[in-house]
Amino acid sequence: MEESKREVNHRLLIKFKEGVTEEKIEECIKQFCKTVDLIPSIMDFQWGKGMGIVNLNQGFTHIFELTFESAEAVVAYISSPLHSEIASLLEPLMEKFVVIDFQPQKLY
Amino acid sequence: MEESKREVNHRLLIKFKEGVTEEKIEECIKQFCKTVDLIPSIMDFQWGKGMGIVNLNQGFTHIFELTFESAEAVVAYISSPLHSEIASLLEPLMEKFVVIDFQPQKLY
Repeated sequence: MEESKREVNHRLLIKFKEGVTEEKIEECIKQFCKTVDLIPSIMDFQWGKGMGIVNLNQGFTHIFELTFESAEAVVAYISSPLHSEIASLLEPLMEKFVVIDFQPQKLY
Repeated sequence: MEESKREVNHRLLIKFKEGVTEEKIEECIKQFCKTVDLIPSIMDFQWGKGMGIVNLNQGFTHIFELTFESAEAVVAYISSPLHSEIASLLEPLMEKFVVIDFQPQKLY
């Protein structure tokens, strides 16, 4: 199988700006869930709020985990109007964020 | 079900220091895989190397994804000698890292 045709995990970690309300964050997450639902190349989605079990989150409080069917599907998503919409909603609210895409491995 | 008894996803993102060789990183990942194999409360494990599809990784190049059976299991892991060993191996090699623990949600 071509490498690019393997599933790709897309992870987004967010630190929201101080003062962003829980209601606003809830609105963003709901919009994110709706967006993901509209994209057939997203095979799996989950999100979560950091529990702070270990104090090493560097301020990141939320994570969004998307699984795409291929690297091309990630590129198509990033370039889509749906992504622009959710990005425009999130951008003014984030203090910082990280995105990492990878093909999951079980062993080395 | 008590919240603390639900599965907990544990994510570790790493930016290795400049100059850390691919061989050294490979050694760390292999050790990580071995460690995870020894901990029965880890229900799932995968890792990956950032593909740089979008240039927003803030320098983070590797991710390790562990699923624990409960929050208590994460605490037990963090306090274990096995974790100390892998942490001692990794710490001098990392420029920065993030850990986030969360109970995965599919919807808001």
